[in-house]
Amino acid sequence: MLKLSFLLCLLGVCVSQYLPDWDSLDSRPLPAWYDEAKVGIFMHWGVYSVPSIGSKGTEWFWKHWDDQVEDYVEFMEQNYPPDFTYQEFAPQFTAELYDPVQWAKVMNASGARYFVLTTKHHDGYSLWPSHHSWGWNSMDVGPKRDLVGELVTAVRNTTPHIHVGLYYSQFEWFNPLYLSDASHLFTTNEYVRTKSLPQMYELVNTYQPDIVWSDGEWDAPTWYWNSTEFIAWLFNESPVKDTVVVNDRWGILTKCRHGSFYTCQDRYNPGVLQEHKWENAMTIDKITWGYHRTTTLDGYYDPHYIISSLVTTVSCGGNLLLNIGPTHDGRIPPILEERVRQMGQWLEINGDAIYDSKPWNYQNDSVTPDVWYTERGGLVYASVLQWPEEEQQVTLGSVTPTVDTTVTMLGYQGLLQFQQLESGISVTFPSLSKVSSEWAWVLVLAGVTPTQR
Amino acid sequence: MLKLSFLLCLLGVCVSQYLPDWDSLDSRPLPAWYDEAKVGIFMHWGVYSVPSIGSKGTEWFWKHWDDQVEDYVEFMEQNYPPDFTYQEFAPQFTAELYDPVQWAKVMNASGARYFVLTTKHHDGYSLWPSHHSWGWNSMDVGPKRDLVGELVTAVRNTTPHIHVGLYYSQFEWFNPLYLSDASHLFTTNEYVRTKSLPQMYELVNTYQPDIVWSDGEWDAPTWYWNSTEFIAWLFNESPVKDTVVVNDRWGILTKCRHGSFYTCQDRYNPGVLQEHKWENAMTIDKITWGYHRTTTLDGYYDPHYIISSLVTTVSCGGNLLLNIGPTHDGRIPPILEERVRQMGQWLEINGDAIYDSKPWNYQNDSVTPDVWYTERGGLVYASVLQWPEEEQQVTLGSVTPTVDTTVTMLGYQGLLQFQQLESGISVTFPSLSKVSSEWAWVLVLAGVTPTQR
Amino acid sequence: MLKLSFLLCLLGVCVSQYLPDWDSLDSRPLPAWYDEAKVGIFMHWGVYSVPSIGSKGTEWFWKHWDDQVEDYVEFMEQNYPPDFTYQEFAPQFTAELYDPVQWAKVMNASGARYFVLTTKHHDGYSLWPSHHSWGWNSMDVGPKRDLVGELVTAVRNTTPHIHVGLYYSQFEWFNPLYLSDASHLFTTNEYVRTKSLPQMYELVNTYQPDIVWSDGEWDAPTWYWNSTEFIAWLFNESPVKDTVVVNDRWGILTKCRHGSFYTCQDRYNPGVLQEHKWENAMTIDKITWGYHRTTTLDGYYDPHYIISSLVTTVSCGGNLLLNIGPTHDGRIPPILEERVRQMGQWLEINGDAIYDSKPWNYQNDSVTPDVWYTERGGLVYASVLQWPEEEQQVTLGSVTPTVDTTVTMLGYQGLLQFQQLESGISVTFPSLSKVSSEWAWVLVLAGVTPTQR
Amino acid sequence: MLKLSFLLCLLGVCVSQYLPDWDSLDSRPLPAWYDEAKVGIFMHWGVYSVPSIGSKGTEWFWKHWDDQVEDYVEFMEQNYPPDFTYQEFAPQFTAELYDPVQWAKVMNASGARYFVLTTKHHDGYSLWPSHHSWGWNSMDVGPKRDLVGELVTAVRNTTPHIHVGLYYSQFEWFNPLYLSDASHLFTTNEYVRTKSLPQMYELVNTYQPDIVWSDGEWDAPTWYWNSTEFIAWLFNESPVKDTVVVNDRWGILTKCRHGSFYTCQDRYNPGVLQEHKWENAMTIDKITWGYHRTTTLDGYYDPHYIISSLVTTVSCGGNLLLNIGPTHDGRIPPILEERVRQMGQWLEINGDAIYDSKPWNYQNDSVTPDVWYTERGGLVYASVLQWPEEEQQVTLGSVTPTVDTTVTMLGYQGLLQFQQLESGISVTFPSLSKVSSEWAWVLVLAGVTPTQR
Repeated sequence: MLKLSFLLCLLGVCVSQYLPDWDSLDSRPLPAWYDEAKVGIFMHWGVYSVPSIGSKGTEWFWKHWDDQVEDYVEFMEQNYPPDFTYQEFAPQFTAELYDPVQWAKVMNASGARYFVLTTKHHDGYSLWPSHHSWGWNSMDVGPKRDLVGELVTAVRNTTPHIHVGLYYSQFEWFNPLYLSDASHLFTTNEYVRTKSLPQMYELVNTYQPDIVWSDGEWDAPTWYWNSTEFIAWLFNESPVKDTVVVNDRWGILTKCRHGSFYTCQDRYNPGVLQEHKWENAMTIDKITWGYHRTTTLDGYYDPHYIISSLVTTVSCGGNLLLNIGPTHDGRIPPILEERVRQMGQWLEINGDAIYDSKPWNYQNDSVTPDVWYTERGGLVYASVLQWPEEEQQVTLGSVTPTVDTTVTMLGYQGLLQFQQLESGISVTFPSLSKVSSEWAWVLVLAGVTPTQR
Repeated sequence: MLKLSFLLCLLGVCVSQYLPDWDSLDSRPLPAWYDEAKVGIFMHWGVYSVPSIGSKGTEWFWKHWDDQVEDYVEFMEQNYPPDFTYQEFAPQFTAELYDPVQWAKVMNASGARYFVLTTKHHDGYSLWPSHHSWGWNSMDVGPKRDLVGELVTAVRNTTPHIHVGLYYSQFEWFNPLYLSDASHLFTTNEYVRTKSLPQMYELVNTYQPDIVWSDGEWDAPTWYWNSTEFIAWLFNESPVKDTVVVNDRWGILTKCRHGSFYTCQDRYNPGVLQEHKWENAMTIDKITWGYHRTTTLDGYYDPHYIISSLVTTVSCGGNLLLNIGPTHDGRIPPILEERVRQMGQWLEINGDAIYDSKPWNYQNDSVTPDVWYTERGGLVYASVLQWPEEEQQVTLGSVTPTVDTTVTMLGYQGLLQFQQLESGISVTFPSLSKVSSEWAWVLVLAGVTPTQR
Repeated sequence: MLKLSFLLCLLGVCVSQYLPDWDSLDSRPLPAWYDEAKVGIFMHWGVYSVPSIGSKGTEWFWKHWDDQVEDYVEFMEQNYPPDFTYQEFAPQFTAELYDPVQWAKVMNASGARYFVLTTKHHDGYSLWPSHHSWGWNSMDVGPKRDLVGELVTAVRNTTPHIHVGLYYSQFEWFNPLYLSDASHLFTTNEYVRTKSLPQMYELVNTYQPDIVWSDGEWDAPTWYWNSTEFIAWLFNESPVKDTVVVNDRWGILTKCRHGSFYTCQDRYNPGVLQEHKWENAMTIDKITWGYHRTTTLDGYYDPHYIISSLVTTVSCGGNLLLNIGPTHDGRIPPILEERVRQMGQWLEINGDAIYDSKPWNYQNDSVTPDVWYTERGGLVYASVLQWPEEEQQVTLGSVTPTVDTTVTMLGYQGLLQFQQLESGISVTFPSLSKVSSEWAWVLVLAGVTPTQR
Repeated sequence: MLKLSFLLCLLGVCVSQYLPDWDSLDSRPLPAWYDEAKVGIFMHWGVYSVPSIGSKGTEWFWKHWDDQVEDYVEFMEQNYPPDFTYQEFAPQFTAELYDPVQWAKVMNASGARYFVLTTKHHDGYSLWPSHHSWGWNSMDVGPKRDLVGELVTAVRNTTPHIHVGLYYSQFEWFNPLYLSDASHLFTTNEYVRTKSLPQMYELVNTYQPDIVWSDGEWDAPTWYWNSTEFIAWLFNESPVKDTVVVNDRWGILTKCRHGSFYTCQDRYNPGVLQEHKWENAMTIDKITWGYHRTTTLDGYYDPHYIISSLVTTVSCGGNLLLNIGPTHDGRIPPILEERVRQMGQWLEINGDAIYDSKPWNYQNDSVTPDVWYTERGGLVYASVLQWPEEEQQVTLGSVTPTVDTTVTMLGYQGLLQFQQLESGISVTFPSLSKVSSEWAWVLVLAGVTPTQR
């Protein structure tokens, strides 16, 4: 029998301890809050928010420029002296208008129950005054503020039900220590020893996040990153050992295989039920994660798309982590504020179908595929993504009524009429002008059973 | 009898010429295009788009800072060296992302039939390479481009049905020549002779605008500005003499009294029919005309407010000039793009009630005051600003039906039912889900007469 | 008979007034102070002190760059964004270390009796808060100080025996008003009317200089510049009418023909006696007038060269105007401070041969050409530019002794021995180690007459 | 008997190896070149060359600013935004005019036989692309060049007789790793392990210097810095093991006690013979080592002072390391170029008294204390710092003549007359005008013995 943990006893009190291997770490139950939360806000913010251009992603500015991608090179040639370097953008990352309390309020208005902030992206710049990134952090150059700490404090003071998550990039594209380790095929680990590990401990001890969201792990094996030791510490000893969750990006071949929740790809939305808890990180800007100055209106997803993503994600067992890119001066662009508030408006009315819900027997309906199910407290929630065009009726093939069946709609007062069909039911929608919800409509089905397949 | 013009004859051809006095100038008929256009886009863009902050208006940054208004002073103290001057912002007015063809497309998508661009605001900085503003124009410092010329060209090439309008501030807060004239109680006019008049001639001759939108006139009399001479030239000899219109800001006591159209106040929307053609210049940002970085979502008017303003303005004989503030780097912020596109979506469906329309006998309805009328080609258009809550019916007290009366709705296929009431009619609205319009709904009334008062 | 002036009588008092023509203006006697002063310091300072590079002169940076001179273009390409303009250098013209009292002390230590400061060069930027150069002056952009006024005040308070001179460029390379006048072959004069003339009156009335040093006049005739009217005002009515002198650069063909003193070329040192008072403007940097960052030691004239220039200039009736180029941050570079102090050290000992002196019958000696003469108060001064190598003796062929002849040396105590030769005398020099002067040595000859030619 | 080294034998060849303790390291003979060289040029260059102000030293800008020293604080308050940090000066450290070949030529003209460049000062910024100072080095931010490498290459190509020396600061004021070690009373050594030691190995392996000039060692013990291990490697294995010398700043209590040569204080010139080889590091700017913008002429030592320092230093067994501070844009200020060239002019004539010389029995003369002795190849050199005022005679009390005694002067052709005195001799000086040397004059005494004390 595999040993998945061991007992650590002190003064007669024994606690179960996880071992630094995936079998043991994966055996830890997922802290309940994460699955219940369903909705988070992701924020990509850093020095790349200064140039904030690039067809292949603004947050990858440095790398694409270095790789001679045309529009990045052209932008630099046209607007900067020939020898300008990426690091010289940092003093312009001013954040002078950064108001973390206002950010907390916007996140709260979005209906999010957690957030994840990029504390360090692949450029290595840390958004907190890290002792391990001297001169390349937000206190030394640019904002002169602890961007991470201020947001954590604001959220805990203002909207304490929102959990704190911290994104951390394992590798740094151009860090000479990392490049040296890489050139030694990761048989040396000076970078990990002196940079990434100390920073992760520093982050957790300082800010006590409930999520450690790792990234940039893909080139090196788990043992190079010391990931299992770190996670074992996180689960056994850290100040957040009872609440913290981690994602799955901890070394070659860990993604979609290990960790508290899986993030199998960017914008991952499989459309079918997943066995393991997962997360759909998607960005409102259709292309980039960092702020993109040249994105015009049609480059942002509309509220219907965002709410559809939320609905389908949750129906399949995922959480939605919706990304916004703040600006170099510390603002959430109004168009992004509008989008997340629109999600919040929808959740205000329809949150019962989302928060604390579980996937149902069916994910989407067998007859009307644009209808997605969850369940919660014995009720089945059917989120209808398109208002029915013909005769105001929606057919739910996956639902079998009983004598006790009632159908209501969130945001509408009164019962809805329905008809039993040979297989399933047909629900008659009310007059749209009497309904307070927009973009998607949630039917609450009481006393129903899943149709036999 | 007052002589309002004189005949200028050359080689046997005589043309009527306006005299440089208001009686004569005001006798000129309004070129038809302006009243037919109804909708314009206003743009405040300049060096003030760099700081782009200020509770009392971003475009007045220099003045309020100089007047020691607190938030302006504090912003400068916190972010700039002590002796920084307003002029030193100009190199940062980069406009590197300015794409005038995209601007033309956005304006077109808004449904606007004309635009007005601030070619020079009260700071004196000209957005074209003026010969009379050396070193303080967009070619010498900042963008290194002819911002005015590029937009005029783009619009004429891309969306030629959109008329060109140029805003020009008569005075300049801190121009020493102006201040000297002012200190001489305007008995000297070096500023006008060497700056404002030459620039206005330059603007008209170079860009041939159909609107000259004057401002900053209020401290000095018409004779100081030489306004009537300039307008007489505009109407008699300029390359745009047949099409050009001017507003009413040409000296003390001219506003709301003289000119092709009146702009009696900022955000002027009187709510009752005006005898003289007028314009409602309003700004989507609830406070400022120039771009304001710290405006959050609730600081922008929503589409319902904007469309209501359009409807009420046009019903009372006005045009709507809807303002947006582009950014220092040359972009229309997406939230503003969204708002103007929302207006455009509405006009796409409901434009028949607006373009080429005339005020009707009633402006808004005597029973349901949220309904506003226009007429066009024998049809009466009733714009309903609120979807009827009760029983889906709207009462129009000002309309008397005839045997030929039919009622339809723009964006809905089929006739609407209506009932004749003792006074007026009651129209039954269709199912909202069958209607393509949002925010306001236009009833088209054929064969109706105005109810006797 | 030519009428050279007229009498203006008021309340019984008549004063002679100069007419605005060269015959009259040239008839004015030279105010004595100027000829007596002999030595001035010239300063070229302005926005060009920011780039401060260029093989063909740093002060002509803008023009040579515009003319595509290679090293100027290369410097810009390598160090600035592609669309950077000259005007954008102005905010970096900071002058934060400018200490006009220290400048006055350095000028005083140089032995200068006047200075000339570039108040406006060909780029048009004014070093004082001119009402006629809004946004392009030292108060609005860059130093935020009245550079001219502060220096004038410091000199008058600290070293009041030093006369104030102001350099002013008539034309401006890129001023559109000037270019327009030029394109009309100077038949229009908007530039002169609104810019150059008002500025010169402003300068004189504000700072009351004793020298108006005009330049940049060469492309246009005197009548375009209105020069004679201006000078007539200067000589008849201005606050400095009794003391002011002007140079000769007032229009095509005026140089070396009209004015209080002639400046026939840059670095003009004819080597023979001139009929009209003249000035040798030379610059310590062998090439440029403005500060040149890349000048290395051998690019500066050594003290022997400078003192030789002074000696030969004064012997031929000229004044020496020795130029230095301060830096963008307001400093006199120490190497230039050293050079002018070296001249001052020499003048401290040998000033009797220079100040208040007159040319003698001979300028340099007929036998030993490196010896240059002046006279003053009945004494003849022979400045010896090379210490005699052989036998410590110097032959003066142009001097005939009398029975009363004595020979002494400035900076040496005691009489020198001399021998009468067939023609002239031979003077025996003392031991060098007993002499306090360096670089050149002045023999004081009492009781001598010029040798007959 | 103390064991000072051990034998390392490989393939039958044994080499003596030094042990990592001071007794062993100090037993290594000084490589001859260093004592023979006598004269070096020191250069303090770095990010502090950007502000380049401060009454207590420009190179200590960051520290004094942080310590609230008044003029530093005031300078920042007056010229920068409130939250500007030292690191943000780095992009302005442009070095665009840096010409290392020209620097090599100037150093050569100074007569120096070695140079020492600050590769990293206490601010931690490295002047080479160190793998251990990412983002805080001259390749990443500022010059974008390998300032160290370019100078090393230029010197080796252009003036190969000049030895390369590299200054390296052990500590870094504000490095959080160092501060953490310090707060642990140096019982941890993460800073040394990851920063200072790797950098010193990198420097030596990359640039192969003949001098490693350590500094900033004073707060921590030798064992913290790992100094003896490093020096043992340097002496035993490094690529420069045969030629390299080190100074004495390697930990608490090492200064003036251990190392190849001693630097007991800054500007150390004891005036008496030292038992151990030492070096006088002095700076031409009387106060600061880095470039100081506000130093005026009297703030620089004059050539007489510098040459006197050289003479007295060498007489007492020291080397002179004369410091200059280049500018942020990469130039040696002309006044400093002049000073070092003046030293070079003097050495060109008088080098025989300096290079390869040894201290004599007397350092300075017992009767005329301004005369300083060296010997070389059996000749005694007496450097006279003041030209004799009276009767042109100098008394040398410490010299006893023999029958073979001759006295000559460097830079003068012919023998000098002398008289034997009761004790010593009296030398008659020639006419100053026949002597080519300035500032100090070297008597060459052949056939003399030291006077008995």
